[in-house]
Amino acid sequence: MNRIKCIVSYDGALFSGYQIQPNGRTVQEELEKVLKKMHKGHDVKVVASGRTDAGVHAVGQVIHFDTPLMLPVERWPVAFNSQLPGDITVLTAEMASESFHARFSTTGKEYRYKIYQEPYRSPFKRFYAHHCPFDLDLEWMREASHYLIGTHDFTSFCSAKTEVQDKVREVKEIVIQQVDHEIELKFVGNGFLYNMVRIMTGTLIDVGMGKLAPYEVKKILEAQDRGQAGKTAPAEGLYLWQVFYGN
Amino acid sequence: MNRIKCIVSYDGALFSGYQIQPNGRTVQEELEKVLKKMHKGHDVKVVASGRTDAGVHAVGQVIHFDTPLMLPVERWPVAFNSQLPGDITVLTAEMASESFHARFSTTGKEYRYKIYQEPYRSPFKRFYAHHCPFDLDLEWMREASHYLIGTHDFTSFCSAKTEVQDKVREVKEIVIQQVDHEIELKFVGNGFLYNMVRIMTGTLIDVGMGKLAPYEVKKILEAQDRGQAGKTAPAEGLYLWQVFYGN
Repeated sequence: MNRIKCIVSYDGALFSGYQIQPNGRTVQEELEKVLKKMHKGHDVKVVASGRTDAGVHAVGQVIHFDTPLMLPVERWPVAFNSQLPGDITVLTAEMASESFHARFSTTGKEYRYKIYQEPYRSPFKRFYAHHCPFDLDLEWMREASHYLIGTHDFTSFCSAKTEVQDKVREVKEIVIQQVDHEIELKFVGNGFLYNMVRIMTGTLIDVGMGKLAPYEVKKILEAQDRGQAGKTAPAEGLYLWQVFYGN
Repeated sequence: MNRIKCIVSYDGALFSGYQIQPNGRTVQEELEKVLKKMHKGHDVKVVASGRTDAGVHAVGQVIHFDTPLMLPVERWPVAFNSQLPGDITVLTAEMASESFHARFSTTGKEYRYKIYQEPYRSPFKRFYAHHCPFDLDLEWMREASHYLIGTHDFTSFCSAKTEVQDKVREVKEIVIQQVDHEIELKFVGNGFLYNMVRIMTGTLIDVGMGKLAPYEVKKILEAQDRGQAGKTAPAEGLYLWQVFYGN
């Protein structure tokens, strides 16, 4: 068997998320459908670095699967892309060692969150960025983001539905940049809890609007209480940008 | 009655085009549906600068309509946008004189055509730019475009279905620019025939690929024969960018 590692990009707008579920179209299901055809009806399981929610996009999701097929590795993207629907593209494929695991081998992830500030919602951005028509003070947002960087218990910044016990994560980098009417928040960390990037973003938006002072983010973090942080920012602005393995 | 002029933006992906037709969702229909509600069930006709085909986008389509309503003019975009679907946005509204006509008063239009050159089709661009994975020589394309600029009979560059008799138009400007993996062709003219921008683009792509020499575009123009020009480039790359009135 060969283990193949692929980088996959998808537009989350028309998916009920990455992971297979009884109702709703999923990215995993579309990938596995293609593999099943290529393996003459045999099921091939696809393992991803993690799931993404309905409406969330991926520029660089990473998956792996095991196959007995002897296809030259550079042919896998073409084989996939000729059969996948238009909203998923396999960008690269490479051979991976048996010890590589798309989920368990990750050492970090980068997410980006896009916000646009035009007075009215844009027909072209409605599925691809979050519409904030009000002014945001980026300096306040940057100041607030510094309290989130580092190793903390992020209980206040994850969904109450989170099942994992250990809520300590390290956020390595938050960069907030504006180009024209678009603001992009880049988050790099060793791992993120359920909804964590969207709740951090929602809270930073509250700071940008002046609803919260930057130093209050420190208090919210210390409170370890989801109720104190801002709203979960909507899915359409979120992109899984890249997944890190190794150092 | 007040005549209102609006700039309207729409994502053409899910429309069967601008103009109302018996089957299929159209931009005109969505606009008129909102106006009908606002006018207590009375029909209000919307006149646009011209139609756009299925899949073609608009950044700055211009429309007008007549209304007895005394709404302050700056409230029209908000009134429209609160009721329109997410793929149409009214950007601005202003009072126009009785002599203004969105279609007959136009003095020119700008279209843009977007091409992207990544090795595989992009999930995010599939409805918003035309995928050309092969190299294009922009210098050849620019040289060829010079033969199209000026006042010519564009019979070779319009659909055989075109009903208008006079096929003389003036193309004032063609600018071809590349940013990263995206190429944008900008066309400004006093008016364009049916499919003219898409056929000019398809022909310029043939030049960029080396299938046609730049000077052959002059011969194609002179032949006044649609069969000699390149393919009609697909709808998804085309944007009605702005409409000009007055000088």
